[in-house]
Amino acid sequence: MDDPRVLAANLTAAARRCVAAGLSALVVSPGTDLRWLCGYDAVPLVRLTALVVGAGEPFIVVPRLEVLAAAASPLGDLGVAVHSYGEGDDGPALVARLLNERWPDREPRTVAVDDRMWAVKAFALQTALKGTCGEAVTVTAAAGILAGLRMVKSDAEVSALAAAAAAIDAVHARVPSLLQPGRTEREVARLLAEQVLAAGHVRVDFIIVAAGENAASPHHEPGDRVLRPGDPVIVDIGGTMPDGYRSDETRTYALAPVDPEFAAQYAVLYEAQQQAVAGVSPGVPRQAVDAIARSRLTAAGLGEAFIHRTGHGIGLDTHEQPYLAVGEEDPLLAGMVFSVEPGFYLPGRWGARLEDIVVCTPTGGRSLTLRPRELCVVG
Amino acid sequence: MDDPRVLAANLTAAARRCVAAGLSALVVSPGTDLRWLCGYDAVPLVRLTALVVGAGEPFIVVPRLEVLAAAASPLGDLGVAVHSYGEGDDGPALVARLLNERWPDREPRTVAVDDRMWAVKAFALQTALKGTCGEAVTVTAAAGILAGLRMVKSDAEVSALAAAAAAIDAVHARVPSLLQPGRTEREVARLLAEQVLAAGHVRVDFIIVAAGENAASPHHEPGDRVLRPGDPVIVDIGGTMPDGYRSDETRTYALAPVDPEFAAQYAVLYEAQQQAVAGVSPGVPRQAVDAIARSRLTAAGLGEAFIHRTGHGIGLDTHEQPYLAVGEEDPLLAGMVFSVEPGFYLPGRWGARLEDIVVCTPTGGRSLTLRPRELCVVG
Repeated sequence: MDDPRVLAANLTAAARRCVAAGLSALVVSPGTDLRWLCGYDAVPLVRLTALVVGAGEPFIVVPRLEVLAAAASPLGDLGVAVHSYGEGDDGPALVARLLNERWPDREPRTVAVDDRMWAVKAFALQTALKGTCGEAVTVTAAAGILAGLRMVKSDAEVSALAAAAAAIDAVHARVPSLLQPGRTEREVARLLAEQVLAAGHVRVDFIIVAAGENAASPHHEPGDRVLRPGDPVIVDIGGTMPDGYRSDETRTYALAPVDPEFAAQYAVLYEAQQQAVAGVSPGVPRQAVDAIARSRLTAAGLGEAFIHRTGHGIGLDTHEQPYLAVGEEDPLLAGMVFSVEPGFYLPGRWGARLEDIVVCTPTGGRSLTLRPRELCVVG
Repeated sequence: MDDPRVLAANLTAAARRCVAAGLSALVVSPGTDLRWLCGYDAVPLVRLTALVVGAGEPFIVVPRLEVLAAAASPLGDLGVAVHSYGEGDDGPALVARLLNERWPDREPRTVAVDDRMWAVKAFALQTALKGTCGEAVTVTAAAGILAGLRMVKSDAEVSALAAAAAAIDAVHARVPSLLQPGRTEREVARLLAEQVLAAGHVRVDFIIVAAGENAASPHHEPGDRVLRPGDPVIVDIGGTMPDGYRSDETRTYALAPVDPEFAAQYAVLYEAQQQAVAGVSPGVPRQAVDAIARSRLTAAGLGEAFIHRTGHGIGLDTHEQPYLAVGEEDPLLAGMVFSVEPGFYLPGRWGARLEDIVVCTPTGGRSLTLRPRELCVVG
């Protein structure tokens, strides 16, 4: 993904979309948008680092201490001009000055910033741009501009996500041996974090271990709850691979003996998830996949207990477009990669979720995560 | 730190500062500001979670799937009203509607958002507020409001940072055994990440392993460079403890045989850092500590090679106020905790950095990180 030709194509595509959207410039701070555009995995500092794309040649502004790191990144091969500023200097002011040289005419202009730029930087840029380039400059969020490009993956990106999926599969393979009665959720989470790194990830992004009644909270923070016989346990884990691509996989386990009512509910969830994956195909509206899972759960009286969307895109971010949710009427496209993860959550009792990462191929959905999907009974 | 009385005091102090600063409301999204204010370590989702403080009772808006996680957090004990919204609904619109009920008079108002709120959320809030509460609403970044409160630590916070420092000290104690000639920077980094977790951190925040000429880049990304005899190696590592407080410590190692020129330069850096720590005292301007380190390095001809500031505050964030840098004229206060980390960087040759976490006590600076500071020669 750090192939300069791929990155150059990404930069060109982004510039073209900016122009088509009527934007005069797109300003991108450290984060996954920056990495996708130029391969530079910059540290997010208080001092502004900002790549500027749009009409005209792209350039990047970095604090002086980052010059070598920027040059060592694929950015160095892309011919992007690097402008640096010293300790006492002002990054947003430098961006504004460079854009002002390009815009001597004082026309009204719209400048977009990457969606996850820190608000304090976005507002500082707004102030600098209005001060230097004129009050007719409007600053806004890029919203769909880059997300629309990033959500359809290349073959190389699909391979990268498959490698990430294999790594997290390897961690789930170890889960049954870790789920011992008497251990706390937090202890299991710590052991899992070590396994996520041992499996080849360079960063642990999240570890959810939710036992018994805690499984009714989709984003439960692992705590002092001790695992007990009979507990259902949701394990939802993910990390970042060296190339930046992410993993994310949920399986529901149960410590024996399993409550037959829970097993029956899980069987419905299993069907709902399998039917949703089978419903993936290019051209299918994204909300239709959500509807498939939801209607199966609803038929079994669990519709109200399915309190979140069915899926989210994944790539350099764990959560990115496309979303499989009510209201998402746009179609799936071949090359999109996303989670399919229905669940049910019954406060005070228990919950369950089943999540695979699925690529939409020309002929349908294919799961990249491959661990068995049946309820995994431990002990 | 999750003591409801402490959190209630934080909420009250924040509200008071908002009013004093002429703000009508402060809107805080998931992140360390939110955790500091109410103990809720929320997952940063695309859907808005936002705590609102200022004049009037605080409240929080969360997507429905987060209701149980919010209730399980210390937020549940604070009496903060929780408003949730469903999958198809709009979080910013709900915030605007709730504030509009409070502001029937249509007066001009300024609403601040937390500094690190995603730009896309900040602009969405701006649109919703102007649409619902009137065009006279201005949205801006909170900038100093919360940073000013967070930068002076309580005794409990200093203890938490001391525990984090002890954990990262324990990892540095293992570094000499890991720096074996023939290993790559990346291999060492992976092993260090596992050690950071084994030492009690719940998250690895950053791992810098920069060997030989790579040590000239302060934020070098560990790569395929193989460790060789004679290499200086900068190891700068940090993580997050279960209570959210962070560690950060840099030591410079050298694989034998050490170049005498490097050893002599390191000896200057050692003096510069020790003198800077000795210069820490309440009332001292922050830039004065920077000046102490800088002048010692400058006297030895290394001033130009010291390309960054001397230090940054640390707490729930790795980098926060106060900053020890040129232009920072405000005084240090007892209870501030920050890094003291001068370095020198000679492109094409090598570099070095020495970093401790230091608390400003009523009687001077006290290092929380305690590993030996002399150049550590390995092999």
